[in-house]
Amino acid sequence: MNTTTAQPLTLEEFLLLPETKPVREYINGEIITKPMPKGRHSRLQGKLCAAINHVAEEPLVAYAFPELRCSFGGRSIVPDVAVFLWSRIQLTTDEYLSDNFELPPDWTIEILSPEQKPNKVIGNILHCLKYGTRLGWFLDPDDFSILVFLPEQPPLLLQGYDSLPVLPEIELPLTVNQVFAWLKMSR
Amino acid sequence: MNTTTAQPLTLEEFLLLPETKPVREYINGEIITKPMPKGRHSRLQGKLCAAINHVAEEPLVAYAFPELRCSFGGRSIVPDVAVFLWSRIQLTTDEYLSDNFELPPDWTIEILSPEQKPNKVIGNILHCLKYGTRLGWFLDPDDFSILVFLPEQPPLLLQGYDSLPVLPEIELPLTVNQVFAWLKMSR
Repeated sequence: MNTTTAQPLTLEEFLLLPETKPVREYINGEIITKPMPKGRHSRLQGKLCAAINHVAEEPLVAYAFPELRCSFGGRSIVPDVAVFLWSRIQLTTDEYLSDNFELPPDWTIEILSPEQKPNKVIGNILHCLKYGTRLGWFLDPDDFSILVFLPEQPPLLLQGYDSLPVLPEIELPLTVNQVFAWLKMSR
Repeated sequence: MNTTTAQPLTLEEFLLLPETKPVREYINGEIITKPMPKGRHSRLQGKLCAAINHVAEEPLVAYAFPELRCSFGGRSIVPDVAVFLWSRIQLTTDEYLSDNFELPPDWTIEILSPEQKPNKVIGNILHCLKYGTRLGWFLDPDDFSILVFLPEQPPLLLQGYDSLPVLPEIELPLTVNQVFAWLKMSR
């Protein structure tokens, strides 16, 4: 999300472009390149997906996707983690997983990278909530804190031993400390 | 806000320390040094104060203070701009301006600096709103956007030609573009 190029593309035209690495997002007519994930970002993204899928995948409750493109409401975004209830996972007509989701996740998680503009990332979370996402997390790894977004409410800034709200369908007791402790890798 | 020192001080003890440059804040028992304001930060802070005071000072409606220490609810913070309605400006018994305000501003404005942790700054805005502040702005100069906080509501991300909400008592029509245009200084 560190480079911005003014482009006269529509969302439909944008979605026809080949995927790139790092991924690009389409926000209010602008194409924005997300920063290439670095160590801490990658670790948090992976562990969050693993923790959620550990409890939610086998009972077919929900699935956490890393880097899944979600296009809706005039934007095409790629949350760091997009959690969908099983019933809302988009399948092709022959029951395979779709490559492009055209709906908002139930729960969106973004992890701030040093090069990112926080308001751009928070803007994507607010866009999700406006279109039906029920929960958003914004992790600031430098601050060891998580800003939690719930519909129609002011955000909550959680840290330390605060319990993190998760989707009611998912049984996952987790404190902020537990999340950031994943960054501490002992040998 | 780039350095953090664990200190066993109480808020009362913290407030007895001499002021420093750059200023320090007391947040949840931690003492945090705000970054030294740089060019863009300084310009936005100055112009915002000037614009607000231009319309609100002479009719004794409100006053915008740069770098005013406000201590309440267990924190001592120094918003980049703290706007107080005239009737809420704290005076000493002999009608001079107080040096230390022990109440939240009516309107708090924070301008993100590159070294700052966004969640720390947003946390201070949320703290203000919890204690009665009616409006918060969070400017991201790299993104040319302003996150607007109103009580009991999700924040609004405003940019471009969006009109900025101000206190109802203050007559100040302003768009996001107008605010960031202050950064463009022609010769």
